[in-house]
Amino acid sequence: MTQVPNRSYRLRELAAELGLNHRGDDSARISGVGTLSRAGPNDASFLANPAYRDELEHTRAAVVVMTAKAAESYAGNALISANPYADWARLIEHLSPPPPHQPGIHASAVVADTAGIAESASIGPQASIGAGARIGERVRIGPGCVIDDEVVIGDDSLVVARVYIGGRARLGQRVIVHPGVVIGADGFGLAMDRGQWRKVPQVGSVRIGDDCEIGANTTIDRGAIDDTVLDDDVRIDNQVQIAHNVTIGAHTAIAGCVGIAGSTRIGRYCMIAGASGIGGHLDICDSVIITAMSTVLDSIDQPGEYGSGIPARPHGRWKRLLVRLGQLDDWARRLKRIEQLNKNNGSAKP
Amino acid sequence: MTQVPNRSYRLRELAAELGLNHRGDDSARISGVGTLSRAGPNDASFLANPAYRDELEHTRAAVVVMTAKAAESYAGNALISANPYADWARLIEHLSPPPPHQPGIHASAVVADTAGIAESASIGPQASIGAGARIGERVRIGPGCVIDDEVVIGDDSLVVARVYIGGRARLGQRVIVHPGVVIGADGFGLAMDRGQWRKVPQVGSVRIGDDCEIGANTTIDRGAIDDTVLDDDVRIDNQVQIAHNVTIGAHTAIAGCVGIAGSTRIGRYCMIAGASGIGGHLDICDSVIITAMSTVLDSIDQPGEYGSGIPARPHGRWKRLLVRLGQLDDWARRLKRIEQLNKNNGSAKP
Amino acid sequence: MTQVPNRSYRLRELAAELGLNHRGDDSARISGVGTLSRAGPNDASFLANPAYRDELEHTRAAVVVMTAKAAESYAGNALISANPYADWARLIEHLSPPPPHQPGIHASAVVADTAGIAESASIGPQASIGAGARIGERVRIGPGCVIDDEVVIGDDSLVVARVYIGGRARLGQRVIVHPGVVIGADGFGLAMDRGQWRKVPQVGSVRIGDDCEIGANTTIDRGAIDDTVLDDDVRIDNQVQIAHNVTIGAHTAIAGCVGIAGSTRIGRYCMIAGASGIGGHLDICDSVIITAMSTVLDSIDQPGEYGSGIPARPHGRWKRLLVRLGQLDDWARRLKRIEQLNKNNGSAKP
Repeated sequence: MTQVPNRSYRLRELAAELGLNHRGDDSARISGVGTLSRAGPNDASFLANPAYRDELEHTRAAVVVMTAKAAESYAGNALISANPYADWARLIEHLSPPPPHQPGIHASAVVADTAGIAESASIGPQASIGAGARIGERVRIGPGCVIDDEVVIGDDSLVVARVYIGGRARLGQRVIVHPGVVIGADGFGLAMDRGQWRKVPQVGSVRIGDDCEIGANTTIDRGAIDDTVLDDDVRIDNQVQIAHNVTIGAHTAIAGCVGIAGSTRIGRYCMIAGASGIGGHLDICDSVIITAMSTVLDSIDQPGEYGSGIPARPHGRWKRLLVRLGQLDDWARRLKRIEQLNKNNGSAKP
Repeated sequence: MTQVPNRSYRLRELAAELGLNHRGDDSARISGVGTLSRAGPNDASFLANPAYRDELEHTRAAVVVMTAKAAESYAGNALISANPYADWARLIEHLSPPPPHQPGIHASAVVADTAGIAESASIGPQASIGAGARIGERVRIGPGCVIDDEVVIGDDSLVVARVYIGGRARLGQRVIVHPGVVIGADGFGLAMDRGQWRKVPQVGSVRIGDDCEIGANTTIDRGAIDDTVLDDDVRIDNQVQIAHNVTIGAHTAIAGCVGIAGSTRIGRYCMIAGASGIGGHLDICDSVIITAMSTVLDSIDQPGEYGSGIPARPHGRWKRLLVRLGQLDDWARRLKRIEQLNKNNGSAKP
Repeated sequence: MTQVPNRSYRLRELAAELGLNHRGDDSARISGVGTLSRAGPNDASFLANPAYRDELEHTRAAVVVMTAKAAESYAGNALISANPYADWARLIEHLSPPPPHQPGIHASAVVADTAGIAESASIGPQASIGAGARIGERVRIGPGCVIDDEVVIGDDSLVVARVYIGGRARLGQRVIVHPGVVIGADGFGLAMDRGQWRKVPQVGSVRIGDDCEIGANTTIDRGAIDDTVLDDDVRIDNQVQIAHNVTIGAHTAIAGCVGIAGSTRIGRYCMIAGASGIGGHLDICDSVIITAMSTVLDSIDQPGEYGSGIPARPHGRWKRLLVRLGQLDDWARRLKRIEQLNKNNGSAKP
């Protein structure tokens, strides 16, 4: 259904390449992928979220990646997986590998004499690479990117297009940076000086570990003095703002539109849901989950789930609730008065 | 007042061209536009919001677009309109048409051999157009844009500057895309696999209907498998984040800084106010209004207004309210105890 | 510790150049800067935030900028300052001056014939400068910037990289614009016209005063008719959205991810903390502080601190609080009933 180009497999071949057990017609032909509801007869599909279980009944998919347990009640072709979503990812990688990489520097790119570009790297149209920058093996720098002076980008990284990286940032290996990202701009450092703001020069840098992914239009500021740091395998969605001197532990994932203020430390294996805001100078321990649109203003030293997002209600009910909130002070007094009265009445009784 | 260049009209000409009735001196000369308070004697102005009614008294405008009813109590020149704000838009289009379009590909642009560019289209400086991309008639691609492989842009669309469009996105006709927009970047698809994140390849695309407008630095991700879809006449403000597989119905307008999580469906004629967050996998029906800074975490199946934004208060009052919120559990117990006591007292009475 | 290149001072020289008193070994050599905890033996450091006071004890810094009072209990070398954070900024400027400026237009830049570029200005690789634009003395326009027609940029301004400025915006002197910023895109002006949105042409401009700083990926829309205005010394962090016809008074600072809706006026010396949203057509007076993640929906006419951000709690407690909020209407009735009962009981008593 979805056009995923250029490879076709028999089910038995695909199962072998992925190292998965399969069930059903092992000569079934698979050349694309689709959701359960839209897959065509040559598409693979998957079932990871039980909410979509009913769609199994009507799917036309050539094969479905699913758990052994789910397969018990499914009559069609199946690839059996202990982790269907992860194996689904591997399956797509097989069916739809990225286009082959063409090393070389596009004629329209501007590369400083002192920049070091690996032979196997590619620099796209209209890109510019600053003095002393180092671009690793098989790195792809896409069209319109600006890689500023002394930036280092590790092997096999992909900088898609129209990205800015400056502040002498160092990126690890296999990092993916999506369009519009800004890494290494100045942090927001200001000193009030006789009625005027004075800019505090930002001289720290940014360090990004291996296997990180940075979503479109996200910003990661350079440190004020020390560095801003993302450890390995940190995954960041679109339009996230990471201020100077934030540090983020390995394997933490941050959804879209989150803002993290300066000098805050986030632990490992945290998950921060969309549009949350995290204050500055906080310490968030490992394995913390922040629910959507929450405001984190205190450090957290216990793993677990935290939040303060309020689900929307019909306008009339919400307006009334706001009125109630305004009355709480009054209620506190009334509650106390009643209790006092009851106590007096009680004690007044014979 | 405001410099709107290059055309001048008599009131009677302008009225005829716009198909509106007019009142007053039909030879009044109009060569610019201004707000009621700042319009000069050759400027047109308008009254759409009754809040600005008092400014009519002192305006120097050559003519004011207004309803017949408003004109009853206005002695100056008027253009009579059933929809003053829409006719005001048409008036500006007449007085200040966009600069004439110069077809052609700028010498500094990089265009792949297999891209198809209409003769009447223009490609600006430093733009790059990928393999197999198709650019329609009279399309304007501004400076620094990156149009990636196989993207399709419909006739009469305007891609202002420094835009990225990829993921094989297809845009309809008369679409306007403002600077910094990223369309078709990978969605945030991750599977946890033995303690590491594994990227789920994003192979869906983006479809954008006719007459859509996308504000500066907004991001619209490509679908994971199926497409992310904006129907016709969807209007999106700046810094909005639209995740993979979101679908938005025709004529829906979304204000700045809104985030919409993956796979959510928004209906037609919805209006979503600024900085609201909408969770994933929800279904929002037609004609829903979400008020500013609300968090939508449940599907909505009834048209109407919804919200959860809390208006700011003076710090002391807000701090006290937060304390009250922390006491609600305690209050629940106290209320119950009082009611129990009253009941016992009541039943204990003779 | 942190590599701040290329100048080295004796303490007495640095004190003289900064006009500060010093204490201790006046021949101490200073060639870099560092935080108290990480400074090496040739680094300067500073103490502005009392929270870091304990770190004084173990610092290896060659000298610490601090108040006279703080110095009383410090045995090491000190630079005495009435405003340590501001003097720290000046110290870094001395130790780490920006790289010398190379005037000239890069061969890959595209400059319209009618643009006026000062001899002392520099235009970077892949930049494009539109017709009638004026670029002042010593201005630096970095790689990939698009300066559209008739934009004016004042002397000594720095436009870092990949910035778009259009809408005939006028920037003052010494303005800093960080990567990804979009200034002068169309505001979000729409009129509903027989079931379709009609775009209201945006013909106002943007005026930005002297000494402003605009953070990465921030957007500032052009006015609808009149201008959007930032007065002098306005400081804006990353990913802030400023809608059409907003005006911001001098010396106001706005942290990351804030959104300000159309036609709102913000006073002088305001501070708006991260991720707050401010509604449209409001009037916020001078010296107002808005705390993080607040929603401002009403005008404010008294200086002071305002907010509505709710600190996150453990999930279980937060869920229970949400339940309590849903019960408030019921509680109101119960409270009233109890009071009525008490009153009746009271009056029923002999």
